[in-house]
Amino acid sequence: MKGSCLIGQSGGPSAVINSSAYGAVAAALDAPDVTRVLGARHGVKGILDDDIFDLGAEDREELRLLQNTPSSAFGSCRYKLADPDKDDRDFRRILEIFKKYDVRYFFYIGGNDSMDTCEKVGRYMKKVGYDCRVMGIPKTIDNDLSGTDHCPGYGSAARYIATTCMEVSLDMRVYDTGAITIMEIMGRNAGWLTASSALASEKGAGPDLIYLPETDFDMDAFLARVSEIYKKQNSVFVAVSEGIHDGDGTLISEYASKNAEKDAFGHVQLGGLAAYLAHITKDATKAKVRGIELSLLQRCAAHCASQTDIDEARRAGEFAVLSALEGKTGCMVAFRRGDGEYSCETVLIPLAEAANYEKKIPLEWITDGGVTQDFIDYAKPLVQGGPDRRLEDSLPRFAHLKYVRA
Amino acid sequence: MKGSCLIGQSGGPSAVINSSAYGAVAAALDAPDVTRVLGARHGVKGILDDDIFDLGAEDREELRLLQNTPSSAFGSCRYKLADPDKDDRDFRRILEIFKKYDVRYFFYIGGNDSMDTCEKVGRYMKKVGYDCRVMGIPKTIDNDLSGTDHCPGYGSAARYIATTCMEVSLDMRVYDTGAITIMEIMGRNAGWLTASSALASEKGAGPDLIYLPETDFDMDAFLARVSEIYKKQNSVFVAVSEGIHDGDGTLISEYASKNAEKDAFGHVQLGGLAAYLAHITKDATKAKVRGIELSLLQRCAAHCASQTDIDEARRAGEFAVLSALEGKTGCMVAFRRGDGEYSCETVLIPLAEAANYEKKIPLEWITDGGVTQDFIDYAKPLVQGGPDRRLEDSLPRFAHLKYVRA
Repeated sequence: MKGSCLIGQSGGPSAVINSSAYGAVAAALDAPDVTRVLGARHGVKGILDDDIFDLGAEDREELRLLQNTPSSAFGSCRYKLADPDKDDRDFRRILEIFKKYDVRYFFYIGGNDSMDTCEKVGRYMKKVGYDCRVMGIPKTIDNDLSGTDHCPGYGSAARYIATTCMEVSLDMRVYDTGAITIMEIMGRNAGWLTASSALASEKGAGPDLIYLPETDFDMDAFLARVSEIYKKQNSVFVAVSEGIHDGDGTLISEYASKNAEKDAFGHVQLGGLAAYLAHITKDATKAKVRGIELSLLQRCAAHCASQTDIDEARRAGEFAVLSALEGKTGCMVAFRRGDGEYSCETVLIPLAEAANYEKKIPLEWITDGGVTQDFIDYAKPLVQGGPDRRLEDSLPRFAHLKYVRA
Repeated sequence: MKGSCLIGQSGGPSAVINSSAYGAVAAALDAPDVTRVLGARHGVKGILDDDIFDLGAEDREELRLLQNTPSSAFGSCRYKLADPDKDDRDFRRILEIFKKYDVRYFFYIGGNDSMDTCEKVGRYMKKVGYDCRVMGIPKTIDNDLSGTDHCPGYGSAARYIATTCMEVSLDMRVYDTGAITIMEIMGRNAGWLTASSALASEKGAGPDLIYLPETDFDMDAFLARVSEIYKKQNSVFVAVSEGIHDGDGTLISEYASKNAEKDAFGHVQLGGLAAYLAHITKDATKAKVRGIELSLLQRCAAHCASQTDIDEARRAGEFAVLSALEGKTGCMVAFRRGDGEYSCETVLIPLAEAANYEKKIPLEWITDGGVTQDFIDYAKPLVQGGPDRRLEDSLPRFAHLKYVRA
């Protein structure tokens, strides 16, 4: 089927979402059936706003640099589409734009919500009889998409987190006067990112304790463990997921806010979970305690990306386009891990299967304050290889796109 | 003069203080006059506690790995010696230890306070007629030692900060909904570290505004600038030194604490400067504002170190030892920059000249919310070259020392 190809990115950025975009763009530019290769600015919002640019007008070398450019080069959004069976206003607009540019191939790169968007667009186009092949390309540092062994973006974030934890572990233990460090790592409901700090511990320079959102967090037990380790070795390094919660399901980070609500003077508790836990731990241990929040850094650290992740992300983008050209639609690219030595095969799964279900760390991989060797064996192959990237004055040379309006 | 060589590290760690240690250790191990090469655990405290280890017992390959191992491998301290003319108790103990191990060469790697320690030890030994050559090896990410063009440790921290700012700049501007990010960078009195974020801005992906402690910070003017840029481009990235202060000299970070002091419920303001500024900026602009504190990460990011810095740090250590062997004493190694294309010569300056004076950014290099091209020209050569380091499973392979008691 001849027609235009439209590619969008959505959700939180990652170090390699642009590598997936590059894989898709390069495959589409090389495909005789694809008449134009277009990009949507800021995901589905760019479609609704007719903010579409011509990827064919970009310099091929700049496009190649997308492989090492973090964040979403096309722009991102967090726009939730309605159910097309209940409210089709947005979908009618999308159809109008698809018709305007003769979009017959639509690729959407993102996490759970983006796969949901993709699925709805595909369902609507099918319903109204507009012939368009729709494919989802997975992306999330959270690694929580179901139906795939792992997600592009996770390996790079994990490599950055493990590397940074090794460095911080050496730094924080440098004085003989004792120190406790609490590092807050992303992950609302799934602990994959925080658990990757265990790769540092395995090298002898990482957290002593790791707390994940898959299990309930008990503050008293936590303080007892920290105090015990502090007495023994004079330093404690703790990694916590932002999403840790108590037995009632209340986020520990919410207690800081609750604390603030009680404040008659209206002073707001400014720090996040790391600052809050550091405060409580200091009270309990009288030690010097520092809270560190990895914040955006863990999401965009292309300089410490995993080459395995970069390559797999690009292959996911390519595979989506090649599969659509072969007639596939309504699917998300997924990874299947081979047995024995690490290998990764790209396969397709129905979009409906991937969307809206968060994959968590198996409970049997989680110990009291850590993870098992099963997790290490799972994660280690994903962080292999440093990025082979272009530098300019020894700083990153990111892709510069022109965004020529289509 | 034949005798033992003793090496200590002190003050805050850096990505390359161990490279200086390696330079000194390697030169000392190769010197026929040096009978034993010893390390002090936790700087001068290790001397006072007779916690001395034998560097000759270490594996040479592990010592080489020190070049890419962050933090102070010998351990650090923040112990301030008295003036030996007023209180010589500590110095008598140090002399006792020096005699015990026949220490005739003493090297101390650190910043302002460490150069002060070094100067006092040298002065005391001279006063009591104990023949010992004493040399300071500079180290500080803050780059605030006087008498030297720059300090080992700065280039690596600057390269990390610039790289990270480029990545965060792309990440934070990804949505079309608008965002303001405030990044807090180390530097109490000197803005060298924060200014290095301008290397990112020069590449088109960095802070829009940079505030340094060399000038007074005006909150109203700051909020007006941020609002203006936000209106124009829908995103603002601000880099601030931890030491920014108002016209009265009050640290802006203190206002957060003062705020908390007024709190009748005893709730403590947990966040630091970044969180505080983010809160105020949010109130003023109603935008989505995020505060990020680079914290320890900027100090220990060996994975993003500057090879120029690593090499210069090693050369500083070597030069200190070779100079002492030639009879020099009471000096600190300093860097002198050549004219034209970047070159860096190691020279010696009197310890007294280096200690206790903080070098700041020249005021003529500072603009309202930024720095001039002079700063860029100064800093750029210092961040050149990525680290050529050993990896294991694609994670850093740091040095493992045995610390065999001497």
